[in-house]
Amino acid sequence: MAENRQWVLQRRPEGEITGGELRFTSSAIPKAQPGEIVVRNEWLSVDPTNRIWMSEKESYLPALPLGSPMRGFVIGKVTQSAAGTFKVGDSVMGVGSWSDYSCGPATNFFASFDVPGVSNKDLLGYYYHIAPTSYFGLREIGQPKIGETLVVSTAGGAVGSIVVQLGKLWGCKVVGIAGGREKCDWITRELGADAAIDYKSEDLGARLSALCPEGIDVYFDNVGGNQLAAALDRMNLYGRVVLCGSVSSYATEGKDRTPYNFLPMVIKRIRMEGFVVLDYLHRYGEALKAIGVLQKTGKLKWRFEDFDDLADAEKAMVGMYAGKNRGKVMVRVGGA
Amino acid sequence: MAENRQWVLQRRPEGEITGGELRFTSSAIPKAQPGEIVVRNEWLSVDPTNRIWMSEKESYLPALPLGSPMRGFVIGKVTQSAAGTFKVGDSVMGVGSWSDYSCGPATNFFASFDVPGVSNKDLLGYYYHIAPTSYFGLREIGQPKIGETLVVSTAGGAVGSIVVQLGKLWGCKVVGIAGGREKCDWITRELGADAAIDYKSEDLGARLSALCPEGIDVYFDNVGGNQLAAALDRMNLYGRVVLCGSVSSYATEGKDRTPYNFLPMVIKRIRMEGFVVLDYLHRYGEALKAIGVLQKTGKLKWRFEDFDDLADAEKAMVGMYAGKNRGKVMVRVGGA
Repeated sequence: MAENRQWVLQRRPEGEITGGELRFTSSAIPKAQPGEIVVRNEWLSVDPTNRIWMSEKESYLPALPLGSPMRGFVIGKVTQSAAGTFKVGDSVMGVGSWSDYSCGPATNFFASFDVPGVSNKDLLGYYYHIAPTSYFGLREIGQPKIGETLVVSTAGGAVGSIVVQLGKLWGCKVVGIAGGREKCDWITRELGADAAIDYKSEDLGARLSALCPEGIDVYFDNVGGNQLAAALDRMNLYGRVVLCGSVSSYATEGKDRTPYNFLPMVIKRIRMEGFVVLDYLHRYGEALKAIGVLQKTGKLKWRFEDFDDLADAEKAMVGMYAGKNRGKVMVRVGGA
Repeated sequence: MAENRQWVLQRRPEGEITGGELRFTSSAIPKAQPGEIVVRNEWLSVDPTNRIWMSEKESYLPALPLGSPMRGFVIGKVTQSAAGTFKVGDSVMGVGSWSDYSCGPATNFFASFDVPGVSNKDLLGYYYHIAPTSYFGLREIGQPKIGETLVVSTAGGAVGSIVVQLGKLWGCKVVGIAGGREKCDWITRELGADAAIDYKSEDLGARLSALCPEGIDVYFDNVGGNQLAAALDRMNLYGRVVLCGSVSSYATEGKDRTPYNFLPMVIKRIRMEGFVVLDYLHRYGEALKAIGVLQKTGKLKWRFEDFDDLADAEKAMVGMYAGKNRGKVMVRVGGA
């Protein structure tokens, strides 16, 4: 294949992602400049954080210039190397692009984890960022104790579903919040949550009060907005809130503001802390080992929503923000 | 004096405290029941937290029943003891009442700190709860580092003024927010703040941006509401917010809600944590020693607004919530 198909950032999103922000095009396969590598992408991971990267503002990564290939987490094999750290044929994952070939600084990539018997799809989809996000976010920021009550938002999503299971393994009562009956059933029947709330059809505050009469000790938040406020209102003394994401705010880039009063946080000594997994790269080995043992012994379940071609990537993204996909959203790019 | 004058909680406050919530009355001097002591109050401390105690809801202390003597921090001498821990004549401070004589469980009191050469007014006014609140709140929750930028709300108040000075002593750039020119001048000229913002006459957000072009690392909040939101918008990566009080919310008991979006907290990994000094009672010695050394060597300044009789206590409280008083508000009750 002499061609490099790619999704290019055409315009900044305004409001909901509905398609049209990206343009599907093709060009010649890029050539690695000094310090760079070229990676033949095998899988592309589609994640809620993609929306943040499309915005004009610098976030925890620099803003992407218009006209650039869309940024994404990828796994694949090195086909060119102008950096000493990798050679052609190495398996790598990292921050690449929505294209057949990712080209960028070698420092954006690292050697694929050596987890024997685990597929590249599992590696990129869960081991690379989802499982460590769930593990460190819950463990380090949430600090759950045996017998405590943990509430998880987007519990049917990739991070949320792992948090639900880790919460149960670590001895908590777990209540998941998700959109739709199917996700709620999956959370309780397959993942072991004690209860689930369908925020689309139920009164979230009333259900939280009914299901957590003892209050909430840890709230793992991926949503922000009214779900965060409803959970905050029901936190216990010394409760912890993990701010892991804020999908309700992505579409408005923070222009929507949830009314909240902080006095209960003072009185109840609540700690609320933002979290980005990049801060724990130096401890990844710990999370991967724990996750690997759990997955291989059948104690941790996950599911994927696969899209079979790079051309489907935009459709995969639109569906994800609409809450339509069931499981971690992955796009198959090409055979490695 | 055979009489015990006292302020009794007559009705729960609604909105601003304007007087009339308490009733000044008198009764016989109470008699200590088993486990209780009676204390001849010498000084009464009037504090923003009093408003929380007047509310119907249990907070970090149980709600006060209507008709009870108003709860307050006091210092004085034991005149009756039906508890083994104290004897008549002991100097004690603790959670007593707005009266000539406090009567309550001995466990609500402890022996006055032994800080040689420090007056009882200083002990009750600053050593007992204000200085430890400032010290532990800033040190443990704020965790300021040398060269960081600290912003302090109610910087002209008791806690805020100590936080300003500790922030300077610990190597920070310090910007104080206060109401009125006099307080702002006092903060910068006497307490050493690098800058002050008069929130009553200046645009808080614009001034924060101008005075902290490098962003805010630690925000010490006693106010909540719009001041908290303005500071949060300007926090740096890994910024810390100490939620020590929320005076803007006391009058509405949390019914006023400030619009806020939490996405920046995720991206910037901000930690916001509620704080009540009662959690640090086991480490009081550390704070008292540090504060004592600083005060006696002239490195820590404070001021008082004294009221000369128990009959003035309500006036003192109304003035405090209106921001009229300059310094820690104290009411002289009787000679010990």
